[in-house]
Amino acid sequence: LTLQEADQENNNAEPENQSETSHNKSPLLPDSWKPYQQSRAFVKGWLLKLRCCLGAMCRMEWYGYAALGILTAFLSFLMDLSVAKVLRAHQWLYVKLEGNSLLQFFCWTLYPSCLCLVGSTFSHNICPFSTGSGIPEVRTMLAGFEMPHYLSVTHLFTKYVGLICTLAAGSTIFLGKVGPFVHLSTMVGAYLSNLCSLVRDKAAGEMLVVAAGVGVASCFGAPISGVLFSVEVMSSHFAVKHYVPCFFSAACGALTFRLFSVWSGDGETLQALFKTNFPTALPFYPLEILLFALLGLLCGAVSCCYLFCHRWILRFTKTNPVFIKMLTTEKGMYSGIVAFLLASVTFPHFAGQYMASKYTMKQLLTSLLDSRQWSSQSHNASVHLKPEPWLEWSPSGSPVYSSLTFFLVMKMWMLVLACTLPVPAGYFMPVFVYGAALGRLVGEGTVLLVGDLSQSSINPGGYALAGAAAYSGAVTHTLSPALLAIEVTGQFSHAVPALLATVLANFVARSGHRPSFYDALSISKRLPHLPSLKKAYSFLLQAALQLQKAAGLVEVQYAVNSSTETQIPVVDSHESQILLGFVLRSELLMFLRHSKTETVEKHLDEVCTIHTISVLLSPHNTVQEAHGILSLVGTQTLFVADKGRLVGLITWPEMKRILEDLAKEI
Amino acid sequence: LTLQEADQENNNAEPENQSETSHNKSPLLPDSWKPYQQSRAFVKGWLLKLRCCLGAMCRMEWYGYAALGILTAFLSFLMDLSVAKVLRAHQWLYVKLEGNSLLQFFCWTLYPSCLCLVGSTFSHNICPFSTGSGIPEVRTMLAGFEMPHYLSVTHLFTKYVGLICTLAAGSTIFLGKVGPFVHLSTMVGAYLSNLCSLVRDKAAGEMLVVAAGVGVASCFGAPISGVLFSVEVMSSHFAVKHYVPCFFSAACGALTFRLFSVWSGDGETLQALFKTNFPTALPFYPLEILLFALLGLLCGAVSCCYLFCHRWILRFTKTNPVFIKMLTTEKGMYSGIVAFLLASVTFPHFAGQYMASKYTMKQLLTSLLDSRQWSSQSHNASVHLKPEPWLEWSPSGSPVYSSLTFFLVMKMWMLVLACTLPVPAGYFMPVFVYGAALGRLVGEGTVLLVGDLSQSSINPGGYALAGAAAYSGAVTHTLSPALLAIEVTGQFSHAVPALLATVLANFVARSGHRPSFYDALSISKRLPHLPSLKKAYSFLLQAALQLQKAAGLVEVQYAVNSSTETQIPVVDSHESQILLGFVLRSELLMFLRHSKTETVEKHLDEVCTIHTISVLLSPHNTVQEAHGILSLVGTQTLFVADKGRLVGLITWPEMKRILEDLAKEI
Repeated sequence: LTLQEADQENNNAEPENQSETSHNKSPLLPDSWKPYQQSRAFVKGWLLKLRCCLGAMCRMEWYGYAALGILTAFLSFLMDLSVAKVLRAHQWLYVKLEGNSLLQFFCWTLYPSCLCLVGSTFSHNICPFSTGSGIPEVRTMLAGFEMPHYLSVTHLFTKYVGLICTLAAGSTIFLGKVGPFVHLSTMVGAYLSNLCSLVRDKAAGEMLVVAAGVGVASCFGAPISGVLFSVEVMSSHFAVKHYVPCFFSAACGALTFRLFSVWSGDGETLQALFKTNFPTALPFYPLEILLFALLGLLCGAVSCCYLFCHRWILRFTKTNPVFIKMLTTEKGMYSGIVAFLLASVTFPHFAGQYMASKYTMKQLLTSLLDSRQWSSQSHNASVHLKPEPWLEWSPSGSPVYSSLTFFLVMKMWMLVLACTLPVPAGYFMPVFVYGAALGRLVGEGTVLLVGDLSQSSINPGGYALAGAAAYSGAVTHTLSPALLAIEVTGQFSHAVPALLATVLANFVARSGHRPSFYDALSISKRLPHLPSLKKAYSFLLQAALQLQKAAGLVEVQYAVNSSTETQIPVVDSHESQILLGFVLRSELLMFLRHSKTETVEKHLDEVCTIHTISVLLSPHNTVQEAHGILSLVGTQTLFVADKGRLVGLITWPEMKRILEDLAKEI
Repeated sequence: LTLQEADQENNNAEPENQSETSHNKSPLLPDSWKPYQQSRAFVKGWLLKLRCCLGAMCRMEWYGYAALGILTAFLSFLMDLSVAKVLRAHQWLYVKLEGNSLLQFFCWTLYPSCLCLVGSTFSHNICPFSTGSGIPEVRTMLAGFEMPHYLSVTHLFTKYVGLICTLAAGSTIFLGKVGPFVHLSTMVGAYLSNLCSLVRDKAAGEMLVVAAGVGVASCFGAPISGVLFSVEVMSSHFAVKHYVPCFFSAACGALTFRLFSVWSGDGETLQALFKTNFPTALPFYPLEILLFALLGLLCGAVSCCYLFCHRWILRFTKTNPVFIKMLTTEKGMYSGIVAFLLASVTFPHFAGQYMASKYTMKQLLTSLLDSRQWSSQSHNASVHLKPEPWLEWSPSGSPVYSSLTFFLVMKMWMLVLACTLPVPAGYFMPVFVYGAALGRLVGEGTVLLVGDLSQSSINPGGYALAGAAAYSGAVTHTLSPALLAIEVTGQFSHAVPALLATVLANFVARSGHRPSFYDALSISKRLPHLPSLKKAYSFLLQAALQLQKAAGLVEVQYAVNSSTETQIPVVDSHESQILLGFVLRSELLMFLRHSKTETVEKHLDEVCTIHTISVLLSPHNTVQEAHGILSLVGTQTLFVADKGRLVGLITWPEMKRILEDLAKEI
């Protein structure tokens, strides 16, 4: 399998040289001044044959899609491997210093803060835009705005190294890798797309769309939800013809990612990333559905709170002079200080013992998704010799409820603070873990409440699963986390409860027409974005220049002088404002020319044709709809009318200005 | 939960009367001539309050979506229940007649053929268009064509009863319920949409899109794949804003469907429809991925064969005079004869014993998805007291390979024949079972081949799962069956192999740009459909009337006389054919008027403005793209140019004609 795919990549990489030379001469003709003429000609001949052979099987793009999936998965695996090594070194050092609390404190705090400092400084100096999630930027690019510096190879390298530093800082910093990986895969996709366009004339324009889907898929080895998540986050419309390339590439990526874990000895076969063992006989009682629905509503409410704090801190860092100074001139220092603060709070001999801070992100999630009931087992935990996964949650036998609640309260502000760090980092995974903790708390609470009634087989892990899906879905305003949670854990028995909780959480989160997490980032970064909020904004219309049907020479002359638009709206009269259609500027010029030669003054409608308007908007259309129609129709001007009365017009530059204005609003 | 939902439905149903009366008078004013004035006013008052209360929580449409899901699931459950009862009666009768082969033969054959006869006659007499799958019709409606008689309540009733007859005929006829259920849910959706539009001014136009998704979801209790399947089959573009309504409604439907099964005593809790028990420790060896890929390619190849046979028989029934006569005048008779023929072949004392004909569709699928190896266990099957699920596959100890092969060969032509039956029936489920059998054969073959090498733990059920997904995906040209197979069986361990097999099968099936199963049905039924095949058809262009830039009075006069189009294309010269833009008919008339008054003959471009063309197609665009642009742009004319040269134009009537021509082609 690998040989074959290496060939494919080879094929994608080689033709670059080939097509350059083949313009000038036949590849088999020797260049007199180059060495190894014979062997070069031989290799070239074989490469040409290979290309014909591969091209005969299917189109060249498909090899590009396969290569994209495989490369991204390889990058993801390599990152996981490096991060695991650095994390293990930290743990080793911490354990070795056992007995000396001060040294342990410094080891615990300075390690992540140094990593953050290095990561932040490195990314700032090499590629200043590489910080943050990257999803808002990718979304802007997919909406049709060109941002070439966001797809450069330097950027890829910087983001990759910076992300390793962030992830290696561990669960104290509590950041993930999903967002940057979507960005990384887009960069790989752009690079491969360039290669593909060298081999074939037609540039593979679909590559970016596909790449966005592959990112999540290779990150978790979850092909289906990866594609669906990127569809939901990235675009407002999706062409079904992109389905097959997307899923093909994602399947390649997920397969490679899981095969790598098998080969590295992590598991005997391809498995879910966070494999769980829920009981299959009776996953949940039918009445528990109500609890899952309540959990969904709770997650929605908490997500509103989180999103509010996040928007507040985004605004605060833009307005507070101290923050502005730190974040513009002393990025590295700021990252170091914040990381130190976060690490101090989570120090295991201090508050950290009540929030399971010794666990890595993966261990946190695995422990939360555990199917056994912590509360009923914690008192006889000492009987077991093997450390149980929930031991960290119940330090010195204290009830798990308090540590879970403490974890939830602390992580809320810590996560909000961590979001300000100027390092490459993803914000999906922490939210996912937070939701799992929320769900776990509800689940353990349920066990406590009904435990006395029946020797219950309630599975709190199922609540953690549904909570993770619902909370991350509410924060990002998407539904696919429901499927993602299932794919990542390999548990299908809880599909319906997870979906229900996610839908209800989305209801609550979207109810106020507030921006989602990624929308808020776009707004904060002043990226031209398409607000996906109905009603929130309607058009900022410019007062349109207009002509009345019976306009004479003077009015037409004025219109021609004062406007450069090619289409000028015509109304019945200035009083009624009923929109009749438009005249073209060229026709107005003709009208003026004719008026000079003729004696009787004619009205506008007697000389010029009033064209009917093909697409008419109403002021209730959203910016998003207008943008969609403008890009689809390809005209330069759209007229806006309210019950037949002209209220304004939108041109393409105007649309860009509206988007920029929106970006400044928050 | 049910009370609450009943309230919602109540709320949807009640305002019909309410809004009628409230136009005329306040609902609290007594009508002197109506009985029970007090109580009626009281109820009305409460209903109004309830409406305000519900409306405050969320928009009225959402109750409609919930009601849609619940109603469809209820219909689905009721159908399953009735079908199970009729099937059990048949089995009871058959067993009672044990000992008398002739009577058993008549029982076996006449029962389904009578049911088919009744179903066919009933649907033909009450609503002639209710036969078949319904998916092509729904697709046409979603594409924007109005077919009101396809959404009537009579049609719903007919299709429902007819479908019960078809399904009750059992696995001898080998037909399913997916397609008709999509159609049924669309009808329910249209009805609810009317109710919603009575409550609010805005008609819920999304309801049809949502309904198409709910159909599959309620059919299998599989919310996620149901929505995705309908997206893939129904449309070429999907708006992400429909995601939440679709998934909400589908989750309601799936939840209700599964809760009904719990309440009816089928299971203790909500479970997958065809629950399997695959070993979770080692679902498959990494090297088996290659076998899954091969299975995908095989399924693709077999699907091409099946689709070819299907297209052939569709054409044959349209051209052969005997078939034409039977299918137009004697539908009931034809159904009876074909069902008798099919049932005779599957008679268990005859060929049926080699194709497990005693199993119902559900039992067939369950047995094929069994995780144990049949081949290695069949020889000591007699030891077990409980009948093992594969016993029917190995009559009198013969090897299972032969019965599986026999099953595959026989069912191929039987299914093709069954597709011609003029009864309401779905064609997805049989294809799904067929794919499972194909996968099972490959799986058992693998066990046979490698069984000696290692005491293998290869799971042939996994191959059946992947085969079902791949084959049904290839036949319908979709990917979501991969997820459907997982959701229906509750097995997530085989997600990646199933997806891989489905993608590869799709590759093979789509490679020749042949129509999918539903495309072929659309073509055969002469529905205006949008062929989703690139290259297969390019435009059938009309030779366009055109003017050259320097056209004089004569040419313009001729153009005005010979064409009624409002936009007439202008080319550089008749030789070069370079398209410059278009002139409006009104301007040409003005040109003629001016020419009469002036002495010097002017050229066209000196007088008229040549408008630039906003949307220009190339002949390589597909009909689908042109249709999309025409509907989006809203203009009446689209020009087609090849490298700048005018080659034709497409108007809206022209587009309809193209679609009708396409429908006649096969």
